This record gives sequence, C-alpha cells and structure tokens, in this order.
Amino acid sequence: MSSSRAEPFDAISVISTKRDRGRIPDEQIDWVIDAYTRGVVADEQMSALAMAILLNGMAPDELARWTRAMIASGERLDLSGVRRPTTDKHSTGGVGDKITLPLAPLVAALGAAVPQLSGRGLGHTGGTLDKLESIPGWRANLSNAEFVAQLNSVGAVICAAGDELAPADRKLYALRDVTGTVEAIPLIASSIMSKKIAEGSAALVLDVKVGTGAFMKTPEDARRLAETMVELGTAAGTHTVALLTDMNTPLGLTAGNALEVAEAVEVLAGGGPPDVVELTVALAAEMLAGAGIPDADPAAALADGRAMDVWRAMIAAQGGDPDAALPVARDKHVLTAPATGVLTRLDAYAVGVAAWRLGAGRARKEDPVSAGAGVVLLAKPGEQVRAGQPLMELHADDPDRFARALEALDGGFDIGEQAGWSTPPLVIERVSA
Amino acid sequence: MSSSRAEPFDAISVISTKRDRGRIPDEQIDWVIDAYTRGVVADEQMSALAMAILLNGMAPDELARWTRAMIASGERLDLSGVRRPTTDKHSTGGVGDKITLPLAPLVAALGAAVPQLSGRGLGHTGGTLDKLESIPGWRANLSNAEFVAQLNSVGAVICAAGDELAPADRKLYALRDVTGTVEAIPLIASSIMSKKIAEGSAALVLDVKVGTGAFMKTPEDARRLAETMVELGTAAGTHTVALLTDMNTPLGLTAGNALEVAEAVEVLAGGGPPDVVELTVALAAEMLAGAGIPDADPAAALADGRAMDVWRAMIAAQGGDPDAALPVARDKHVLTAPATGVLTRLDAYAVGVAAWRLGAGRARKEDPVSAGAGVVLLAKPGEQVRAGQPLMELHADDPDRFARALEALDGGFDIGEQAGWSTPPLVIERVSA
Repeated sequence: MSSSRAEPFDAISVISTKRDRGRIPDEQIDWVIDAYTRGVVADEQMSALAMAILLNGMAPDELARWTRAMIASGERLDLSGVRRPTTDKHSTGGVGDKITLPLAPLVAALGAAVPQLSGRGLGHTGGTLDKLESIPGWRANLSNAEFVAQLNSVGAVICAAGDELAPADRKLYALRDVTGTVEAIPLIASSIMSKKIAEGSAALVLDVKVGTGAFMKTPEDARRLAETMVELGTAAGTHTVALLTDMNTPLGLTAGNALEVAEAVEVLAGGGPPDVVELTVALAAEMLAGAGIPDADPAAALADGRAMDVWRAMIAAQGGDPDAALPVARDKHVLTAPATGVLTRLDAYAVGVAAWRLGAGRARKEDPVSAGAGVVLLAKPGEQVRAGQPLMELHADDPDRFARALEALDGGFDIGEQAGWSTPPLVIERVSA
Repeated sequence: MSSSRAEPFDAISVISTKRDRGRIPDEQIDWVIDAYTRGVVADEQMSALAMAILLNGMAPDELARWTRAMIASGERLDLSGVRRPTTDKHSTGGVGDKITLPLAPLVAALGAAVPQLSGRGLGHTGGTLDKLESIPGWRANLSNAEFVAQLNSVGAVICAAGDELAPADRKLYALRDVTGTVEAIPLIASSIMSKKIAEGSAALVLDVKVGTGAFMKTPEDARRLAETMVELGTAAGTHTVALLTDMNTPLGLTAGNALEVAEAVEVLAGGGPPDVVELTVALAAEMLAGAGIPDADPAAALADGRAMDVWRAMIAAQGGDPDAALPVARDKHVLTAPATGVLTRLDAYAVGVAAWRLGAGRARKEDPVSAGAGVVLLAKPGEQVRAGQPLMELHADDPDRFARALEALDGGFDIGEQAGWSTPPLVIERVSA
C-alpha cells in the first residue's frame, strides 16, 4: 500500500456516505475505483462498501458514474477500424445456453460485425469459451489487431477478454465472490456493463435469464436488472435493449461443452431444437435492428446456409477445424422415466448442476473442464413419456461421477397427468430505453 | 490461510444470513469469531459481515452469543483469589474524563476491590493509562499474580489489559476502524462488554457519555447502547448498571494528561471541580451498591482522606511516586473572552480536539503523547465573564501547536446575555436490568 497522504479522499468517508444512505459524490466514485485498482483502497474497505451498496442501493446517476469509473480503470477497445456496424449480445447465464455460437455468425452473415468477448464458466452455468475450446485447434486469445482484422474479414469474433478491459471489475468481482456481495443489482449491472461498454460495440442486446437455472429467480428481479443495464448502456451512448427469457428449463437438448457445440452446428445447418432456434432468431433480430439493419431475415439465413458459412470461417480464423470430430466422453449412463405421463417440469438448475458434476463445469477458476461431459435431454416439458423410457443421457469421462449427478437430478423433474399442459413463453418481456 | 476444507461452516453463508436479515445460528457465530481469530475468515469477509450487522442489526440473544464467542477467543481473568467483592466501571469516553483516577481508590477505600483494565487514548478523547503515565515511575503493565496481589493489598488496580483478553475484539476493532463500521451499536456494545466480562468483575457500572464530545451524540443512541450493554452484562451474570451522563461540556477544568492527574488529586484531597466530584460520588455509589455495600458514604471518604490514602498506595504499588512533581508543558497561550456576558456553551468536542492538537492525544496508536500538554478551563458554562478576561490556557511543548488548537476552539463557545441560564443535569438517566 503506497502512502495515503497524497490521496484526495479517504475510503472511510466514502464507505460512511453509502452506509448512511447518501449519494457518493462523482469525484469520490472516480477516486475509490481508481484507488482500489491501485491497491490504495484495501479489500476489506471495498467489501464493506460493496455490502453497503448491496443493502442501501445506488441512485441511477451514481451507478452510471460508478460504471464509467470501472471502464476508465482500463482501456476501451477501438473498433473505429471496423467497416461494418457493430452489435453484440450478453447473456446473464443459464443452462444449455449455447445461443452465442449460432447467433454471432448469423448476425455477421446479415451484414453486422459481432465483437463478442466471452468468459469461461463457473458453477452450474457453462462458459462460451469452454464450449468452443472443445473444437480441435480453436484458440480463445487474439491480439487487438487480429480481433479487428477478423471483424472485417469474417464479421464475427468470439474470444477471451484481455486483462486490460475494466481491471477494476475483475478485482471487484473476485472480492464480491468471497464476501457475500454478488447479489447486488447495481454491482451486477455495472460489472456486466463496464465490460460490454469498454468493448466498444455500438449496439448491445442483453439476454436476461429468469428462473431456477438463472441468477435472477423472479421476473421482478430480472426486470430490475434489465432496466438498470439498459439505462447504463443508454447513458454511455450504446444502443441497448434487453430481453427477459425463461430459464426454468434448460435451453435445447444439451448441457455440456462439445455436446452444445454439436447442437449449435445443427441449428446452423437449419435444424436443431425449436427453442434454441426461436431465441437465436429473436436475439439476432434485436442485434440487427440495433445495428441499423432492421429488415434482415435471420430465419432465412439459418435455413439457407449463410450463417453456417460464417461459422466455418470464424472457427477456421481462430485455428479451429470446423470438420473435426468433437470429443466424446468415455462413459454414458441412461436415466429412465420412473412413470408414464406428461413431463411437466425439467429443472434447469438440477440439469446444470448435474452437467457440472459430470465434469462440464468447474468449481474454481483454475479447474480444467471435460470437453465431452454433460447431459443430453431425450424429452422436454410438454412431451409424453412412458415408464422405463430413456429420459436423459449422462456423459462423463469417469463413471464415478454419475452418482453425484443423479443425486442432483433427484426431484429435478415431474411427470404428471395434465393433458392441457402448455409450454410457457420463452421470451417473457422486452426492455428498452 | 489454512485449508478451509476441514471447516464446519463457510464465511459466505454466515455473511449472507445477516445480509438477508436472518439470525446467525449459535454454532456459526462461535465459528466465525474463532475462525476470524485464527485467520481462516479473511478481513474482507469480516468487514462485509460487520457492515451487514451495522445495517441489519442483531437480535438480543444473537448479540449475547456473539459477545460470548468474543470472550471465548481469549482467556478470562480469574479473580477467585480476591478476598473483597469486585466492582468495576467503564466510560465510553469523553473530554476531561479523569473520573477513574479518584473513583477506583475511593471505592477501594470503602471495602470493594476495583480491577480496572484501561486503554490508551485515540483521537480527541484521552486514555486513563496515558494520564497515569505522566506520574514519574508509574508502570501500566502487571502480571496476573501482581494484579490479584494488589487487589488484596491495596484494593484498586488500574493497569493495561493483556493481549490474551478477547483477542477477537482487538482484531475486529482494528478492522472496524478502517472500514466505516465503528458506528454499530451491537458491535460497540459487544466490544466493550466482551473485554469487561472477561475481566471477571462481579459488578460493573457503565458511564455512557452523550453529547458533542462523546461517541453517542443523542440521548436516544446513548440509551440504546446502555440498554444493550446492561442486557449483555446481565446475561453473562455480571451485575450491570449504566448511567447516561452529559458530555456536551468537558468534565472539570482540565483536558490533558498531567493536568487531569493534578485535578484528580485535588478531588482526592476533598476539593476539585463540583462536576467531577458529583460524578465520582454518583458512580462510586453505584459501584458499591453493585458490590453489596449500598450504605457506604463516598463523599465522606473523599473529604476525610481515606480515598487519598488508597490512591497513594495504588500509585506506589505500581512504581509511581505520588509526591513527585508532575510534568509541565514548555509553552502556554492564554485565550481571552471576546465579549462580556454569561458563558452559555463550552463545547466538549472543540476542547477535546484542541487538547489533542496540543499534544495530549494521538492520531495513530504508535504516536507518543505529551504529558504536560492540554487545556485548562478558567470558566465553565453558567459563569459570568468579561471581555478580555482569560477564558482558557493552552499548554504545549511546541508553540507551533497553538494555531491549530485555536482553530479547533473557534466557534466552540458562546457568550450570551441570559440571566436565567442554568446548567443541565450531569447524570441524565440510570439504566438497569
């Protein structure tokens, strides 16, 4: 810790302001984020501030300034060399959420550039980079020059965010993770938006998941988060829209890295599960509208192979072989239906935890993931099943993992008698400025 | 940090319980205090928990358990070898508060034993040990055996608390000090009471200061703190009573280490300022009642020299020379009254800060204090003053200190015209179980 005598403010008074339900003055917000990044404000001070923010909230303009300070802690990507309109998507994370994989090439096929900086998975939700890394040869790390060149040549890039993007957020996120301060809507919103705004895309579509498999369990919380993020994006000059989408049921029929890549390729080939296609098309339409291309027809570009062509070029540009066989797990276990009836519930969280325990996810940042592990769903809610019929397949490299995965799935689905059961809507609500 | 795998609980769930306004289960309270003392729960986790406690509060039985866990983090003094009833006093801290000095020998003179573990000053309030250390030869550190022996021979000990008393509190207090979490009544109450209960006295009287020069600015806050502490003491089996006393005006006519010792000796000689005498007698009566000696006459024991005899024995037993000349500051500055009228206000905080800046107090734990520095008041509220008449004397070893002390006193007193002005009561309220 360097000498605090030259600092214009002190952490205790910033903390006390928020503790006493005040509005932190702009210059003090700028200072506390910068000083925390420099190590002058200590972790124990920032965690007390984070708890005070969690419990006492932040005014909209206060949060906008906080987000701006987080962006200013690092560099902002310069996309001025990109010759197409830029548009990006961010999902708050769910189970079986492979949408980015078909979506980025689809939107690029229709004339926009998609600069997608992604992360790895932690806990029960998978990470886009983990999924793509199951493709032999594919690499997640690009230089800034490679990034811009690929946006111009291919139109879509999915790669790892560099360390220079909003470093204050990375440090703060790690702290929140161990101090019970993750669940604060202002902090979640500013964490996501500082990175997305620093990425430099002109338009942004937020997929805010709601349900058992999502971080936000209720539509009310999800709506508050969506509104907060749309406000932050708009204030920063990024055209921002959010969709609230259902995450009580896994998306598609797979949860697991290579399993989800294979499903994404099916969608790009014009097939795939209807829910994945529906959400991909809905998000593509929003991204394209944000980019000033409102009349594009995403469904057609999936059906006629244009999106697939961009996918192949995108994977190849990052060293991957789009024709290579994907890794397969060494062992398989089939879970059968215990009764006859209609599958009325298939819990996203249970499936997510099962896939995680099978090896698809990690408990700590430094853990490896299994490319082949995961869950394949053989029935989705609304479908009729018979007792003894296979309901899902569990894939793992190590058969010892099946027991704990089955434990996670215990109570994770219902088979009922309702004839009139109907699937709830996938897209629940649209939030715009 | 040792492996957390063997730990029965985790800090995040303890924090989350309090964050979500829940009651932390007993075993988790015991664990979190113990694990924090061991370094398994990190500072950044404890500061988030402290902020959650500050904002969401604690149930009475939850706080009692928390206090018990803090006591259990260290050793409890064994006073079973003391042959008199034990009784102690704690003040929440004020300006000119030298009451412990005449009080401990006075109560011992009337048959009780006073095991007083004291601290050093920080900020604008002085510390009892700093004051006594201005007496040539006096030492603050005693072994447990010396402590018990002196309680039997002299009846009163004022000395430094050892490191083994409630170590969790020492660690937590240092953390709260830098994280804006000092101002939490449950944390203040458990910090004070864990140390006082661990001290092992059978009875305890709390002097809860209220006013500008005190930590509690309003009677409402002071009452809440007093009630909380009386509850904690009673639950732990210590006979506990609190007095709320005024701290808008400094106590007596001096603020500073040797200056206050001299004033205490005046009181022990049967003289001294009436407010110091009044509070000393009131607290002595409560301490003696708590020790089962309700009929003693403290005023008489001050007047006839019995208390002075114990004072001399107590100072001598700890190496001090009760007849030695006290240190005097090198420089003196006189502040005169700017107008003629009645002194209607003399702000305790202003005088406290002035004394601190003159060298009587310290800004950081490791700073030295000046024995001679401080403020001598030549008039108290209610008295008539004439323009140009000396109002107070500032004492310092370094004349450069006068300017900043005078700055602190600017606006710190009022001279008015009211003829009917009367002094507010010194003892505001009594709180008992």
